[in-house]
Amino acid sequence: MPHETPATFAQPWPVRDDVRIRAVKAIVTAPQGIPLVVVKVDTTEPGLYGLGCATFTQRWKAVQTFVDEHLARLMIGRYPGDIGDLTRLAAFSGYWRGGPVTNNAISGIDQALWDIAGKRAGMPVHELLGGKVRAAADTYIHASGIDIEQCLEHAKELVAQGWRHIRLQVSTPGGGGYGAPRLATLYPDMPYHNGWSARDYLRTTPELFAAARESLPDNIELLHDTHSRLTPKEAVLLARSLEPYRLFFLEDVLAPEHWDRLPEVRAASPVPLAVGELTTSMSDAVRLVRDGGVDFIRSHVSDIGGLTPARKLADLAELCGVRTAWHGPGDTSPIGAAANVALDVSSVAFGIQEGHIYNDATHEVFPGTLRIRNGWLTPNERPGWGIDIDLEAAARYPAELSGHDEWAAGVRRIDGALEAP
Amino acid sequence: MPHETPATFAQPWPVRDDVRIRAVKAIVTAPQGIPLVVVKVDTTEPGLYGLGCATFTQRWKAVQTFVDEHLARLMIGRYPGDIGDLTRLAAFSGYWRGGPVTNNAISGIDQALWDIAGKRAGMPVHELLGGKVRAAADTYIHASGIDIEQCLEHAKELVAQGWRHIRLQVSTPGGGGYGAPRLATLYPDMPYHNGWSARDYLRTTPELFAAARESLPDNIELLHDTHSRLTPKEAVLLARSLEPYRLFFLEDVLAPEHWDRLPEVRAASPVPLAVGELTTSMSDAVRLVRDGGVDFIRSHVSDIGGLTPARKLADLAELCGVRTAWHGPGDTSPIGAAANVALDVSSVAFGIQEGHIYNDATHEVFPGTLRIRNGWLTPNERPGWGIDIDLEAAARYPAELSGHDEWAAGVRRIDGALEAP
Amino acid sequence: MPHETPATFAQPWPVRDDVRIRAVKAIVTAPQGIPLVVVKVDTTEPGLYGLGCATFTQRWKAVQTFVDEHLARLMIGRYPGDIGDLTRLAAFSGYWRGGPVTNNAISGIDQALWDIAGKRAGMPVHELLGGKVRAAADTYIHASGIDIEQCLEHAKELVAQGWRHIRLQVSTPGGGGYGAPRLATLYPDMPYHNGWSARDYLRTTPELFAAARESLPDNIELLHDTHSRLTPKEAVLLARSLEPYRLFFLEDVLAPEHWDRLPEVRAASPVPLAVGELTTSMSDAVRLVRDGGVDFIRSHVSDIGGLTPARKLADLAELCGVRTAWHGPGDTSPIGAAANVALDVSSVAFGIQEGHIYNDATHEVFPGTLRIRNGWLTPNERPGWGIDIDLEAAARYPAELSGHDEWAAGVRRIDGALEAP
Amino acid sequence: MPHETPATFAQPWPVRDDVRIRAVKAIVTAPQGIPLVVVKVDTTEPGLYGLGCATFTQRWKAVQTFVDEHLARLMIGRYPGDIGDLTRLAAFSGYWRGGPVTNNAISGIDQALWDIAGKRAGMPVHELLGGKVRAAADTYIHASGIDIEQCLEHAKELVAQGWRHIRLQVSTPGGGGYGAPRLATLYPDMPYHNGWSARDYLRTTPELFAAARESLPDNIELLHDTHSRLTPKEAVLLARSLEPYRLFFLEDVLAPEHWDRLPEVRAASPVPLAVGELTTSMSDAVRLVRDGGVDFIRSHVSDIGGLTPARKLADLAELCGVRTAWHGPGDTSPIGAAANVALDVSSVAFGIQEGHIYNDATHEVFPGTLRIRNGWLTPNERPGWGIDIDLEAAARYPAELSGHDEWAAGVRRIDGALEAP
Repeated sequence: MPHETPATFAQPWPVRDDVRIRAVKAIVTAPQGIPLVVVKVDTTEPGLYGLGCATFTQRWKAVQTFVDEHLARLMIGRYPGDIGDLTRLAAFSGYWRGGPVTNNAISGIDQALWDIAGKRAGMPVHELLGGKVRAAADTYIHASGIDIEQCLEHAKELVAQGWRHIRLQVSTPGGGGYGAPRLATLYPDMPYHNGWSARDYLRTTPELFAAARESLPDNIELLHDTHSRLTPKEAVLLARSLEPYRLFFLEDVLAPEHWDRLPEVRAASPVPLAVGELTTSMSDAVRLVRDGGVDFIRSHVSDIGGLTPARKLADLAELCGVRTAWHGPGDTSPIGAAANVALDVSSVAFGIQEGHIYNDATHEVFPGTLRIRNGWLTPNERPGWGIDIDLEAAARYPAELSGHDEWAAGVRRIDGALEAP
Repeated sequence: MPHETPATFAQPWPVRDDVRIRAVKAIVTAPQGIPLVVVKVDTTEPGLYGLGCATFTQRWKAVQTFVDEHLARLMIGRYPGDIGDLTRLAAFSGYWRGGPVTNNAISGIDQALWDIAGKRAGMPVHELLGGKVRAAADTYIHASGIDIEQCLEHAKELVAQGWRHIRLQVSTPGGGGYGAPRLATLYPDMPYHNGWSARDYLRTTPELFAAARESLPDNIELLHDTHSRLTPKEAVLLARSLEPYRLFFLEDVLAPEHWDRLPEVRAASPVPLAVGELTTSMSDAVRLVRDGGVDFIRSHVSDIGGLTPARKLADLAELCGVRTAWHGPGDTSPIGAAANVALDVSSVAFGIQEGHIYNDATHEVFPGTLRIRNGWLTPNERPGWGIDIDLEAAARYPAELSGHDEWAAGVRRIDGALEAP
Repeated sequence: MPHETPATFAQPWPVRDDVRIRAVKAIVTAPQGIPLVVVKVDTTEPGLYGLGCATFTQRWKAVQTFVDEHLARLMIGRYPGDIGDLTRLAAFSGYWRGGPVTNNAISGIDQALWDIAGKRAGMPVHELLGGKVRAAADTYIHASGIDIEQCLEHAKELVAQGWRHIRLQVSTPGGGGYGAPRLATLYPDMPYHNGWSARDYLRTTPELFAAARESLPDNIELLHDTHSRLTPKEAVLLARSLEPYRLFFLEDVLAPEHWDRLPEVRAASPVPLAVGELTTSMSDAVRLVRDGGVDFIRSHVSDIGGLTPARKLADLAELCGVRTAWHGPGDTSPIGAAANVALDVSSVAFGIQEGHIYNDATHEVFPGTLRIRNGWLTPNERPGWGIDIDLEAAARYPAELSGHDEWAAGVRRIDGALEAP
Repeated sequence: MPHETPATFAQPWPVRDDVRIRAVKAIVTAPQGIPLVVVKVDTTEPGLYGLGCATFTQRWKAVQTFVDEHLARLMIGRYPGDIGDLTRLAAFSGYWRGGPVTNNAISGIDQALWDIAGKRAGMPVHELLGGKVRAAADTYIHASGIDIEQCLEHAKELVAQGWRHIRLQVSTPGGGGYGAPRLATLYPDMPYHNGWSARDYLRTTPELFAAARESLPDNIELLHDTHSRLTPKEAVLLARSLEPYRLFFLEDVLAPEHWDRLPEVRAASPVPLAVGELTTSMSDAVRLVRDGGVDFIRSHVSDIGGLTPARKLADLAELCGVRTAWHGPGDTSPIGAAANVALDVSSVAFGIQEGHIYNDATHEVFPGTLRIRNGWLTPNERPGWGIDIDLEAAARYPAELSGHDEWAAGVRRIDGALEAP
C-alpha cells in the first residue's frame, strides 16, 4: 500500500533566522587536467553562499547529475544551519545509502553548509570545530622514479625544497609501481600496458628503502604505498622486510575486499599501517579505526560524506589511539584540501597530511587556495573556508570524460588478471 | 639471482568469436509510476543485445548518467563473453568502488551480458548457472492496514488468492508503520507528521501477530519488516515477543550502521532474521552471511553489482547455512525479477522470494515479464532472461524526478529526528 | 635534572583577532539549596564573557579553589577560540589527569569558552555543533514513594502533567531506596539511618513495575535506577525479572569498580542498561560505549571534562549504536543543563534527557534558564548558551559545606557495611 | 511468605577504646621547592596524631581545600582504627569518586590513620602489614644529559656512588627528552620552543643505550622513561630496538588514554614494561596488572588513594606475576616515601623502588626522613612511619602557585600540538 505524503510538512523546528537555501549547483572544472567537482549552495541572503568538495574525478558526471537533479530539489527552501539534519536527509531520502557517488554528492552539500556557517559566524571553519590544537599540518609529498636511482634523485630535490616526509615509489620490472612512471611493457604484444608482479614488487621495495636510508638524511620520514595489491601474507612479508628502515607508514597493503584481515597484518609488525583512502562508507572507516586494522586512517573526506562524518571519524581515531592522514592529492579540490586542513589543525588525532601543489590555473579558478610552505600547511583565518571560486575561470577549464577510465583499466597481473588500480 | 621476464606473452586471451559490444544505453521508464532503469547492451551481431536491471529508483538519473557517460565508453569494442573481467573493469576503473549508484550501473551491464550469453548459447540464464535445483520459487506478498483488523482483512484476501507466505504490517498509533498508511500525528503541538515511536511499535506488533495467529490458517507463514528502526536491545525484545507466533522471518531489525551488532540479536532468539536489502557492497553482504548476522540474506541484486556477485553470495549462503530472500518489490524491473528467479531455482540456499505483481503497463513495456501463479514464480525457458523491452512503450511512461525524495524525507521520530526510511 | 622553561613562549599560532581571556572566576551559589559551581570567563572585549558548569556539589569548594588558584593563572592572556588546545593544556599541565574535581574545573572553562564562541559567532552553541537533528529533547522525571501506592500516586500526577517518561523508585523495607524518602530505620539503636538489603530490593522492585503496568497508561515509558548496589549476578536477576514490564532503561546496576563486568549483564537480557553518571574519565566512558557495557551512556558532562569531550562521546555512541542520556538532575547548573540540551538536539545518538524543574530562585540567579514544557526541553536560539548569571542574586544564595557529606555517608547494608551511595 | 526485619541491631560495631579523631588539617610546605601536601590527623588522645602524604604538587591548593573543607568535617569524632571504613566513607560521600585531587586527599587521611595505628600498636607500619619479607628495597636513580656523553658522565658518577639501577635520559635533537634539559627548537620559523619529535627520539634512544652498554659496567641495570609520548606501534619499535641492551624496564610508553593497547605492546617484545605513575583510579591500576598491560606497576600511592588500596594492588601484582615500582621522586613527601618502603619490604611482588635524595631542608621539616644508603632504602623501626613534622620549619618553606603549571604547558610537538607532559 502506498505511503501517502501529508499535505503539509512545515519546517520541522524553529530556526534562528530567515536565511534559506536558494540554489544548489555542481560545478565541474579541470584546471590541472583532473576533473574537480565543487558544489555551490546559494542562500536567500545576498552574497551568502558556500562551497563544498564533491570530487569523484573518475565518475564526475554521475556526481554532478546526483547533485543537480536529485539533491538540489531536496535542499532548496531549507535552513542552512541544520547541517546534521540536512546531510542525513540527503542520505536517507535515497533509501540505499553510502558509496562513492552518493557520498561525494552529499559531501558537496555538507562542506558548503559548513562554509556558510563559518561565513555567518564570521569564523574560519576550524574555529567552529573547537579551534586549533596545532599551528600547522605537516605534509608528505610523492617521489617516484623508473628505478631506484631516479626515485632517490627526485627525493633529494624534495628534501632540498624543505619537505620532511616523502613517499617513495619505484617501478617494478615491467612497470606499474603505483605513483611511478610506467615502463613500456616488457610484453609488447600484450594489449595491457603494465604487467604487474607481486613477487617482483616484494623483492624490489626493500631495496628501495635500504638505498634511501643510505642516501637521504636520517631525519627524513619515509612513506610507501602498496596500492591494495597484496595478500595478507604478502603484506606481513613486506612490512617485516621494511622494519629496518623506520617507515612513517606503509599504505594500503590490502584491497578493500580483504580489510577484515588487516588486524592480523597490523599485529604482525611494528611498521605502521595506513589504510582508508578507498573507504566509501563510514561503517567501513569506523571498523578500520575501532577494530584494530589501521594505525593511520586515510579516508578521502568527500568519499565518506563530508566534514560532518569526517570529524566524527577523527574523534573516534583519537579515542582509539589511531592517527589521521586524510587523502589529498590532485583529485581533491582546493575546497576539499581546506576541509582536510581544518580537521588537521583541530583534531588531536592528526598524524600527517598528504600534500599536493596546485598549479597556477587552480589558484586562478579558486582564489585563496592554500599553499604549502616549507612542507607545512596552515589554514587561513578568513570566514568559512576562505576560498572562493571564479566561475568564468572555471569554465575555461572544462572537464573531459575520457582518459581516467583508461588509467585504472590498465593495471593487470602478467597473466592478464585485473589488479586493484 | 635476477630473473628475466618473458619476452612475449601474446594476446591476453583468445576469444571465441568476433562479436563485440557496440552500444550501451540506460533506459528509464515508469510504467507503474516508479522509475525503473534498464541497461541495453547492443552488440555487433545484428539483433543480439542484452538487458540488465540497474534500477535505483530514488536516484535513477545519476545511474543513467553513470551508465551513459562513464561505463558506455569503457565497454564499447569489448568481447561480451568476458563478463567477469568486464564487470571488474567497470568497478576498478572508477578507483572508488561500491555503493548504490555504481553497483546499480554495473549490474545493468552485468545482467545484460548474461542475457547476451544466454541468447548466444540458446539457453535460459539459470541453465548457464548450472541448471535448476528446484522447479519454482515460492514467494511472499505484503498485507497491510491502518489497524490490525484492516491488515488481517487484507491478509485473508491474499490467502484466498493462494499465497502461502504473507508479510504483515500495520500502522502504529500515530502512524508510520512501514508499508502501512500513516495517520495524522498524535502530538498536534509538534510540527511533524508521521511521528514514529519505537515503543508504540514494540507494543503493537505482538498484538498484530497474536491476532493473525487467531484468525489466519495455521499453515500460513507470517513475515514482518521492521525497517531498520530499532536498537539492538529493542530488536531482541521484539524477537522474543514474537516467538509464540512462529514467524517465517523478521526483517531488518537494525539499520545498516549497526549491523555489526546483528550477531548478538541473532543469538538471542530463535526468530529467524532477514537482513540485507540495504547492502550496497559485497563486503557488507559477505560479512552478514559469514559472521552470523542473518538467517536470510535479502540483498537487492543490482545494489551489490548484479548477477555475478549475487551468485557468489548465494553460494556463500549455502556454505554457511544461510538462506536467500532476494529483494524484489516494485523497485526492481522485470529484468531484475528474472535474475532473482534464475538465482532462486539454481541455488541450493534459496529460502523465499519477495513477490510483486506487475501492472499491465509493465507487461506492455517488458514483454515476457514473469507472472506469479498461486504464489509460485517459475522462470521461462527462453534464451537469456526471455524478456524484451518495447522502447516505444517505455517512452510512453517517462520517469519524473519529484516525489521519491519526499517519501523518505517524511519519516521522523516524534521529536523530529530523521528515522531510517 | 630540572626542566628549564624557555625564556620566551610566544603565542603558539596566529589567531583570528585580538580578544584574550582577561579573568577566570568560579562562582558558587545554591538557589535551590544544592551548591552549584559556574565558571565565568571574562575577555578583553567589553561585555564578552562566557559561563560554564563546573558543579561538583559534594566537593564544590575544592573545585572552586582548583579554578581560582590553579586554572585561572594558566588561562589569562590566551585566545578564547583555542578551546581544544586550552582544555588539553588545563588537563596536561596538572600532570595527573581526570577525576571529578579536575574534570569539573576544566569543564567550567570549556563550556565558558563555547559560550564565548557562540556569542562571537552570534550563534547558539548547538549550531556550532552542526545544528539541530531534532526539534526538542524528550525528558524523564522522577516519581518516588515510601511504598508502591505512594510512588504510583506520584507517577499519576506526573502523567497528568504531560510527562511521557517516568523513573519509579520506592523504599524497600527498612528504607533507603534511592530517590525515595527514607523510613525511620527499623533498627533504632543503629547510628546508620538506612539499613539497605539487596535481597529485599530484588523482591520489591518487580512488584513495583507489575503494579505500575497495571495502573499507568500503556504508552508511558518506565525507568528505574539501582544506584550501583548490585553484584553482576544480582543485576542479571533484576533485569530478567523486569523484562515483562518493558523498561525504557534500567540504570546503574553495578558500581564503577565492577564496570568491566557490564558486558556480561548487557548480553544477558534485552532490558536496556543505562550506566555512566559516575564516569569521571573519558577513558572509562569510552570503554563503556565501545566495549559493549551500556545501551545508554549517562555521563555527567562536567565530570568528563565538558562539552568538548562529551561531543566526542556522543559521536562515539552514534558509531557504536549506543544512545545518550546525559545526567541532569538538581546537581547540574542551568548552564550545564543548556549544554546537555545542545548535545541532545545536535546528536544523532540522543536517547533521553534526565529532566529537572528549577525553582524560581534558580531562574532569578540564571536568567534564561530553560523550562521543560509538556516534558520537552528545547534550546533557546540566543548566542552561546543564551543564559546569564545575576551575580547579586547568586550572592543571596550562598552555599554551605554541611549536609551533603552526610547524605551519602548514611547508606549502609544492615550489617553496617558502607554501600555505594 | 513475607519476612520481618529484626527489631534491634544495636551498635554497628564495638570499638576498642575511646580515642576519636579531633582534627584534620592539610599542611603544605616546599622545602625543596616542590609543594608537598601532608595531612595531620589529631586525636583526642594527647600527643597521638598521624601524618599522611596527600601531595599533588601541581594542584596542591585544591587538595588542601578538599581536606580542610570537605573531609575534615566528615572525620572528626570518628574512631581512627576504622581505616577501611573511613576511607570508603571519604570516597563514597563525594558520590563522584577517584581522580587525583580526591585520591590524594583521601590518601592523606588513610596514611595518617595507619601512622596512628602504628603508634597505638607501638609498631612500624610494615609490621602491621604482616612484617618484612625482605631487609631493604633496592632503588634506582636518574641520570640525564643534554647529549649522550653528558648523560653517561652523570651515570658514571652515580655508579661510583654505589647505585646499581640507573635511569638514563638524554635530550633529543631539538630538545624535550623527558628528564633532560631542553634545547632551543630546531625549527626557528615555528614559534614553539621544545618542539619534540617522536621520530628523533626513536632514533636517538637506542644510540644512548648502545653507548651505555659500551661504557658502563655490565652489572648495572639500565632503565628508561618514555613519558607517554609514543603510539603503540612506535612503542613496539622502541622496545624492539632496545632489546640488545637488556633494560631492567622501559617506562610509560603510552599515554593513559591509550592504555587499552598496552597488552599488544607487552606481547611484542621481551623488554619489561613499567607503567602506572599516572594511574588515578584503582580500576585503571587493577586493569593494568590483571589484563596484561604491564610488567611493573608504577602507581603513585597517594594518587590511587593511599596505603590501603596500594597494599591491595601489591597483592594483586603478586597474584598476577607483576612486580611493583612505586612512583617516588621529589613530588612525594617523606611520609609518602615511608609508605612506599613499608610496601616494598612487606610485599612479595616488590620489583624496584624509585629513589630520591631529599635535601637538608626536607630533613629539617620532616625529622626521621629515610636516607638511601648505597642504593638501599630501609624502613626505620619506630612506631607508625617513624617520621615527624616540624610545623614551624614547614612554615618557613611556603609553597607558591606559580611555575608548575607552566612546566607541562611547555611540551609541544614541533607543529604546536600539546604533548603528554
